[in-house]
Amino acid sequence: MPRYKAVIAYDGTNFNGFQAQPNGRTVQEELEKTLKKMNNGRTIQIFGSGRTDAGVHAEGQVIHFDYPEDRPLERIRYALDTQTPEDISVKQVEKVAEDFHSRYHVTEKTYQFRVDIGKPRSPFRRFYASYYPYPLDLDKIRRALPDLLGTHDFTSFCASGSSVEDKVRTIHEAKLEVNAQGDELLFTFRGDGFLYKMIRILVGTLLKIGNGRMDETSIPAILAAKDRNLAGPTAHPEGLYLVEVTYE
Amino acid sequence: MPRYKAVIAYDGTNFNGFQAQPNGRTVQEELEKTLKKMNNGRTIQIFGSGRTDAGVHAEGQVIHFDYPEDRPLERIRYALDTQTPEDISVKQVEKVAEDFHSRYHVTEKTYQFRVDIGKPRSPFRRFYASYYPYPLDLDKIRRALPDLLGTHDFTSFCASGSSVEDKVRTIHEAKLEVNAQGDELLFTFRGDGFLYKMIRILVGTLLKIGNGRMDETSIPAILAAKDRNLAGPTAHPEGLYLVEVTYE
Repeated sequence: MPRYKAVIAYDGTNFNGFQAQPNGRTVQEELEKTLKKMNNGRTIQIFGSGRTDAGVHAEGQVIHFDYPEDRPLERIRYALDTQTPEDISVKQVEKVAEDFHSRYHVTEKTYQFRVDIGKPRSPFRRFYASYYPYPLDLDKIRRALPDLLGTHDFTSFCASGSSVEDKVRTIHEAKLEVNAQGDELLFTFRGDGFLYKMIRILVGTLLKIGNGRMDETSIPAILAAKDRNLAGPTAHPEGLYLVEVTYE
Repeated sequence: MPRYKAVIAYDGTNFNGFQAQPNGRTVQEELEKTLKKMNNGRTIQIFGSGRTDAGVHAEGQVIHFDYPEDRPLERIRYALDTQTPEDISVKQVEKVAEDFHSRYHVTEKTYQFRVDIGKPRSPFRRFYASYYPYPLDLDKIRRALPDLLGTHDFTSFCASGSSVEDKVRTIHEAKLEVNAQGDELLFTFRGDGFLYKMIRILVGTLLKIGNGRMDETSIPAILAAKDRNLAGPTAHPEGLYLVEVTYE
């Protein structure tokens, strides 16, 4: 059966995360509902590059699915895009090899995290950025970021309860930008993979460093300790975006 | 009684417009509810620089109200900001002369209108920009814009049913910008005042010109005819922002 890969975006505000589950509306469920309609009532399962939590957004989540017919790609994309609810959009559909897997063949993922630092909080960002109204020395954050680069055991930056055994990951890029108005931060993290809630714990830790409640040189010791209690708090989900997933 | 002027922002998505009315939640009502609490249960009326329709946003709406006590401005601002719902924010509060009026003393208003021209529509802009997926020649729009500048009778660009008699207004600035990604238009209109739904009809007309269904030289004739039927359609409210209101 032909296999298709799709790049999708979604506003996570009204979803209880990506992955289908008994409670609440999910992205997977909405996509599968639409594919079932397109496939004359027969179920088609989709596979995502990974889950995203409730409230987390995606600009470039990747999924794959098998579709029995060989239809023009733009027709599949358009049908999926327009028949799913408005908080999901289907940006691109391509045919892939039948052994392609959206999760197992990932080579790199890029996440971004937006922080509203304006006073007062912008009503337009309340679902699209985390809010941090406290003093921040951005240079301290910038000096701490390089300590995250490279290959490390990120146990200290993984939410407890994760069932993943191997917590070694490689981060290729970790940067901080500020928008032109100076009222919003944009963190970008690119790496071979990220653990459960890892980006949100990284951001929570970096904000604590910027706020002066943690030293800017703390990260190597936190990594070495492999202890979640030493890192900062978990930043709120509404600031997080899965931006890009790449494959070989 | 001391009079205060406040600059407020609101996400219009979940409001049935600015002005209090029997049906649905309004910005005025939420602000007055909060002021009443702050004033020990006694009603305080607010006056806006003008109404905005359901779904229309504001970055810089101006209101005034009389408050019996002479409290520190930042305390009033903070109380109003944090006690109103999250889709309203109170950016600034200042004391003004007792004869200041947020509506009658306006010298200039600036509106912006955002149009999502990306394919597919961004899920993040569905409440914050109007969607226009059709071909557009932006140069045609840019050549038409200067015909709106100056003092004209804008009857043709006013929704029927408006009770305003004098439909002469002066537009000082009318411009079009495109974002860096090339998937969003930003129109800016600055003038001494605007008629009911005027910005939305202007945008609807300019998009029709950009799409080639109306000639780029049409605007002078439309203005001269004083006939709403000659202008383009009314663009959707979710793209419209009241950005700034200025006073002498």
